[in-house]
Amino acid sequence: MFVMGIDPGLSRCGYCVLEVRRGAAARAVALGVLRTAVGDPVPQRLLELQREVRALLGEFTPQALAVERVLFQANVRTAMSVGQASGIAMAEAAAAGCDVVEYSPNQVKEAVAGHGAAGKEEVQRMVQTLLGLTAPPRPADAADAAAIALCHVAMAPMAMSVQRSLR
Amino acid sequence: MFVMGIDPGLSRCGYCVLEVRRGAAARAVALGVLRTAVGDPVPQRLLELQREVRALLGEFTPQALAVERVLFQANVRTAMSVGQASGIAMAEAAAAGCDVVEYSPNQVKEAVAGHGAAGKEEVQRMVQTLLGLTAPPRPADAADAAAIALCHVAMAPMAMSVQRSLR
Repeated sequence: MFVMGIDPGLSRCGYCVLEVRRGAAARAVALGVLRTAVGDPVPQRLLELQREVRALLGEFTPQALAVERVLFQANVRTAMSVGQASGIAMAEAAAAGCDVVEYSPNQVKEAVAGHGAAGKEEVQRMVQTLLGLTAPPRPADAADAAAIALCHVAMAPMAMSVQRSLR
Repeated sequence: MFVMGIDPGLSRCGYCVLEVRRGAAARAVALGVLRTAVGDPVPQRLLELQREVRALLGEFTPQALAVERVLFQANVRTAMSVGQASGIAMAEAAAAGCDVVEYSPNQVKEAVAGHGAAGKEEVQRMVQTLLGLTAPPRPADAADAAAIALCHVAMAPMAMSVQRSLR
């Protein structure tokens, strides 16, 4: 089973696809950053991002796409472009029949580093450890996407068992 | 030639398609609001919006999509969902080979009502007059989309003549 995490953005959109097998540690099969050129028109950049996200979804057919729920942004311009990128990714996932799950930044830190107040570097080191990498993923957007995907891997079984117990 | 304006939003996305002919007043051939259910999951709502925008672009093949550039939002949640909706619409337009042009709220008011400080109702009344309607378009999101499309109709010839004079 594959789980995809993305850290949405228009200039840099982090992505990570994890292979998840019962009884084995999650393994990153794709990890990186989709970039679009700052000088290009926004609609072209969004279209490019749409095509790259679609290609990743087509290649791995992940069961779920995990996305960070943005609760705060320094300014409206950033919130708008994060919104544009996340909207594109979510619609593509929905079109591909892939579940979309949103996690708050605190849920991601809690799941990956054990506490919601964990710093960026602490989260990156934990991502490195959990995925058995020789160094923390670079750039940071790729590490963030990996953390979001790992958060889903940690949380999803719990959510499913809660659903079962509620039946 | 057709020009489409949209006032992006996830719950209510205003749209207006104008038919523009040399020497004749612009005529609204489609005017309304695309709605998605507040209770549905966001990815499904985005996918629905994507399909409806795609259908409008397919039906009219407008030469341009005019979108309001959002400069300020009361809160990040609103900015995010406006960003998500505008991202979807812009990528669809780019995929359809349709020009995308953004206008600031002040440009829209200036073009439609003659001054950038015009109030909502003044703009709505001008939209009614310019399109020869018996009442201002309702809901307000449809009127806003019409104002954005009218702004493009007013501005585009000027922009093109500036481009020509720069050659």
